[in-house]
Amino acid sequence: MRVAVLGSKGKVGATMVQAVEAADDLTLSAEVDADDPLSLLTDNKTEVVIDFTHPDVVMKNLQFLIDNGIHAVVGTTGFTDERLQQVRSWLAAKPGVSVLIAPNFAIGAVLSMHFAQQAAPFYESVEVIELHHPQKADAPSGTAARTAALIAEARKDLPPNPDATTTGLPGARGADVDGVPVHSVRLAGLVAHQEVLFGTAGETLTIRHDSMDRTSFVPGVLLAVRRVAEFPGLTIGIESLLNLQ
Amino acid sequence: MRVAVLGSKGKVGATMVQAVEAADDLTLSAEVDADDPLSLLTDNKTEVVIDFTHPDVVMKNLQFLIDNGIHAVVGTTGFTDERLQQVRSWLAAKPGVSVLIAPNFAIGAVLSMHFAQQAAPFYESVEVIELHHPQKADAPSGTAARTAALIAEARKDLPPNPDATTTGLPGARGADVDGVPVHSVRLAGLVAHQEVLFGTAGETLTIRHDSMDRTSFVPGVLLAVRRVAEFPGLTIGIESLLNLQ
Amino acid sequence: MRVAVLGSKGKVGATMVQAVEAADDLTLSAEVDADDPLSLLTDNKTEVVIDFTHPDVVMKNLQFLIDNGIHAVVGTTGFTDERLQQVRSWLAAKPGVSVLIAPNFAIGAVLSMHFAQQAAPFYESVEVIELHHPQKADAPSGTAARTAALIAEARKDLPPNPDATTTGLPGARGADVDGVPVHSVRLAGLVAHQEVLFGTAGETLTIRHDSMDRTSFVPGVLLAVRRVAEFPGLTIGIESLLNLQ
Amino acid sequence: MRVAVLGSKGKVGATMVQAVEAADDLTLSAEVDADDPLSLLTDNKTEVVIDFTHPDVVMKNLQFLIDNGIHAVVGTTGFTDERLQQVRSWLAAKPGVSVLIAPNFAIGAVLSMHFAQQAAPFYESVEVIELHHPQKADAPSGTAARTAALIAEARKDLPPNPDATTTGLPGARGADVDGVPVHSVRLAGLVAHQEVLFGTAGETLTIRHDSMDRTSFVPGVLLAVRRVAEFPGLTIGIESLLNLQ
Repeated sequence: MRVAVLGSKGKVGATMVQAVEAADDLTLSAEVDADDPLSLLTDNKTEVVIDFTHPDVVMKNLQFLIDNGIHAVVGTTGFTDERLQQVRSWLAAKPGVSVLIAPNFAIGAVLSMHFAQQAAPFYESVEVIELHHPQKADAPSGTAARTAALIAEARKDLPPNPDATTTGLPGARGADVDGVPVHSVRLAGLVAHQEVLFGTAGETLTIRHDSMDRTSFVPGVLLAVRRVAEFPGLTIGIESLLNLQ
Repeated sequence: MRVAVLGSKGKVGATMVQAVEAADDLTLSAEVDADDPLSLLTDNKTEVVIDFTHPDVVMKNLQFLIDNGIHAVVGTTGFTDERLQQVRSWLAAKPGVSVLIAPNFAIGAVLSMHFAQQAAPFYESVEVIELHHPQKADAPSGTAARTAALIAEARKDLPPNPDATTTGLPGARGADVDGVPVHSVRLAGLVAHQEVLFGTAGETLTIRHDSMDRTSFVPGVLLAVRRVAEFPGLTIGIESLLNLQ
Repeated sequence: MRVAVLGSKGKVGATMVQAVEAADDLTLSAEVDADDPLSLLTDNKTEVVIDFTHPDVVMKNLQFLIDNGIHAVVGTTGFTDERLQQVRSWLAAKPGVSVLIAPNFAIGAVLSMHFAQQAAPFYESVEVIELHHPQKADAPSGTAARTAALIAEARKDLPPNPDATTTGLPGARGADVDGVPVHSVRLAGLVAHQEVLFGTAGETLTIRHDSMDRTSFVPGVLLAVRRVAEFPGLTIGIESLLNLQ
Repeated sequence: MRVAVLGSKGKVGATMVQAVEAADDLTLSAEVDADDPLSLLTDNKTEVVIDFTHPDVVMKNLQFLIDNGIHAVVGTTGFTDERLQQVRSWLAAKPGVSVLIAPNFAIGAVLSMHFAQQAAPFYESVEVIELHHPQKADAPSGTAARTAALIAEARKDLPPNPDATTTGLPGARGADVDGVPVHSVRLAGLVAHQEVLFGTAGETLTIRHDSMDRTSFVPGVLLAVRRVAEFPGLTIGIESLLNLQ
C-alpha cells in the first residue's frame, strides 16, 4: 500500500513518516509539507494520505484528495458541522473514496470509553480519575469529561451514585460531570493516564489507560491507514475500525 | 416477581435469601433445603428459582421446575454435555420456560473477559496477573487460565508477544497459557483479583477486577433472576444478559 | 504471655478475643465486659490488657491497671491532653508499667504515613487519593487529611506542586490540605484504601494501603501486646514499635 | 556551584549537561569528552564533576579529580572491590575530597528498596512484580532481584510466605529469590516499573516505582552534586544522601 504524509515536517507528521517507513506492508510514496505541491501525491501513485496539517489548509487538501480518488486519514482539528457537511458532499460525487477524521487515534483511549459505556449499566457507583503532567491547562481533561458524559448517558436509568458524604473539604469529591465524579491529578513525571472505577456489592472493575509517550497515536493511525478503504464515505473516529459490537 | 431459593441453608443459598428479601422488586416465595418438598415452590406460586444445591440433586430439581413452568437460575456445578443435552430436551417440550446455568456470576469477571477479547487484536503484548489469598490450591486460577485462553484465541492471527529475555531465573516470566504469560500472586489479605495488561508502542491498557468478599456473585444472580424470562430455552453464562455486542 | 480483653463483647473486643485465642504465644486470661468486675484481671494473673471500651470508663480502667502493674494496649478514643497528663502522673508512681494508646492500629496505615514523610522532600509533586465505601460521612478521610498534613510539613522548604491548570470544573483538582491536593473516591464494593503519589522528572513513586476488611487492626494490636512491656511509661501510636528510624 | 560533566557527549552525559544548565543554583564549568584534556576541569575552577564515562578511563579520571581536590559523582560501572580500595587510598591522602559512586541514581528505586526493607518484618506475605519493555534481556531485573534479596534478609526470622498451591502450571508462582516470589512482565509500551506487595490479615501495602523515561536518573544525580561535599571520603549509593533513618 502506497502511503503519503501531509504535514511531513510537523512533529506528528515526522513521526508518521518514520512509522510508515518502518512498516513492512506500507510504502512511503511522498512526504509533503507546507511548501510542496499536492501533485507530488498523484505523481507518486499515493493510495492513502495521512493528514496532520492545519485547519487553514486541511479543506483544500481534502478536496484535492477526494478529487483524485485518494483515501484520507485525518488528525487535523477544526472540523465544524459545516465543514463535515462539505466533505460529505464532495464524497457523494466520488463513491468509493474514504475519509476518516478522528479527534483521538490512541486505541486504548477509544477502547476505554467503549468498555466504560458497556460496563456502566451494571454498577451502582462509578468515578473517573485522570492523571497528567503538571503543564496541562485544563482539568478535567477533555477525554475524561467525554468519558464521564458517555458513562452518564449509559446509566441514565439507574439511581445516582450512593454517597453519604455530609462533612468535608470543598473539592474532595471531585468535579461533577453529569453526576459522575471526575478527579484530576497533576504530577511531575506523568504523561497521560486515566482510570475508570466501577463498583457494586463486593466487587470493583477498573479500566486504566496509560499513554507513556507522545507516540501513542501511531498504532491507531496505522490501523486506520490499513483499513480506511473498507469504509467508503466519511467516518468519524476510529471506533468503527475496532470491530466493537 | 416471586423468587424461591433452592439450597437455602447453604452458604451461597443463605446469602441469596437475604439478597432477595432486600430487593424491593422481588418477593421471597419459598426457602427450600435438602429435607423440604419441591411442592413448596408451586404451592407458593414461584416464578423464578435460584438453585445453588449439589450435582446429585440439581437434575431432579430442573426436571421439576421445567415441568411446572418455573424459570431457573443455576449456579450448581457438574454440568456435562450429556446433562446439558437432557435439560435442552426437557425444555423443548416446554417452550417459554428459561434455564440459565452459569459457572461464574461475578459481573466484573465476565465483563473483564469480554473486554479482554475485544482489546486483544489491537496490542502487540498481553499478560495476565491474578492475585489471590494464600489458601488457594491452584495456580493459575481457573478464571485466569480461561481469560488467557480466550485472549489467545482472539489474537491468533497476530505475531507472538515480543520478548527478548535470554537470561534469568526459572518461573520469572510466568506460566504459558497458549502463548499468554500468566502470573499468580498469593498474598495474605487479598481475596480474588485479576489484571489483564495490554501494551503497544507508547501505551498500555489495563483491565482489573477486584472481588473484595465472597458476596460478589449477588448482583449477577439478581440480574439473572430479573432477566431470565426474556431468554426461553437454555442459556449458558450471563454474557447474553449483559447486552454486550 | 497472659492477655485479657476489656470490652470483650463489643465488635472489636470480640475479634480480639478470637485473635488472642488463635495466637500460639498468647493465653487469654480473662474476658471482661461492662458488667464484670475488674478483679477478674488480677484473679487471672493478667500481664497485658487490650482495652477497646468507651471514653466513659477507660480512665477508671487505666487507673486499676496501672495500680495493679498490668500493661495496657488501648484503642478506646477520647483522650484529651488533660487525660493523657493524668495517665502520665499515674504511671510516674509505677515505673515499669507500660500504657500504649493508639488512634490507628493498622500497621499499613502507619507505615504509609511514615514512608510518605520520608519520600516527600525528594519529589516536586505529591497528591493523595483515598477511596472508601459510600457510607462514609467525611471527605477526605481523617487518615488522608493527617497524611497530607504530615507530607506538607516534610516538604515545607520546597516550592509548591507545579500546576498549570487555568481552566476547568470546580473540584476537579481535589481538596487542598496545606497545599497537598487530596481526592476522595466513594465507591460501592470498596472498604478503605489510600494512595500517595509522588512525582519528579521521569519517575513516580506510589505508596498504597488497602484495608480489605474490618479486621486489619488485629496484627497491630497483637504486635503492641507482645512489645508493650519494652516501652515503660506512656506511648502514643504504634510507630515506636515498628523500629522505624 | 561550578559543575562539569565528564563523558559529555554520551547519552547520559549529554542529558546531564542540559540538566546542569537548567538548574538555577548550578553553573556548567566544562564539558569534557574522550578527546578533551582533563585540565579543562581545573582551568574552569570546577568544584564537582559528574562522571558517566567508561570503566577503561574512570580510574584515571578519579585520580586526577582527587589530586585536584574536585568532588566526584560517578555513575560509570565496573567498580571491583580492588578498584574501590584504590579510590579509598587516594582519598586518604586528600581529606575533604568526596567521591560518590552509585549503581542507581533513581531516587524512587532507592526509596522503594529502603521502604520495602522497613515494612518486611510486619507482613506474613511479600511478592515482587517488575514490569519492563520487551527488549530487556534479563528476567527478573537486577533491581527486582536485589529488592527481593534485601526483603528476604529483613524477614529472615519470620515463617515463609503462606502458600497452599498444590496444582498448577510451571512458572505461575514466579521465580524464587531467597523465598520471595518475583514475577517479570515484559510488555510493549512499558519503560521500567516495579511493585512490592505486602499482605497480612485484612490489609495489603504496595510500594510502586514507575520510571517513565530514561531521564529518571537526573534528580538523583543533581541531589548528589549538591550534597556530595558533605560526605568526605568514599560513599557507595545515594541512600546516605536521602536522610533515611
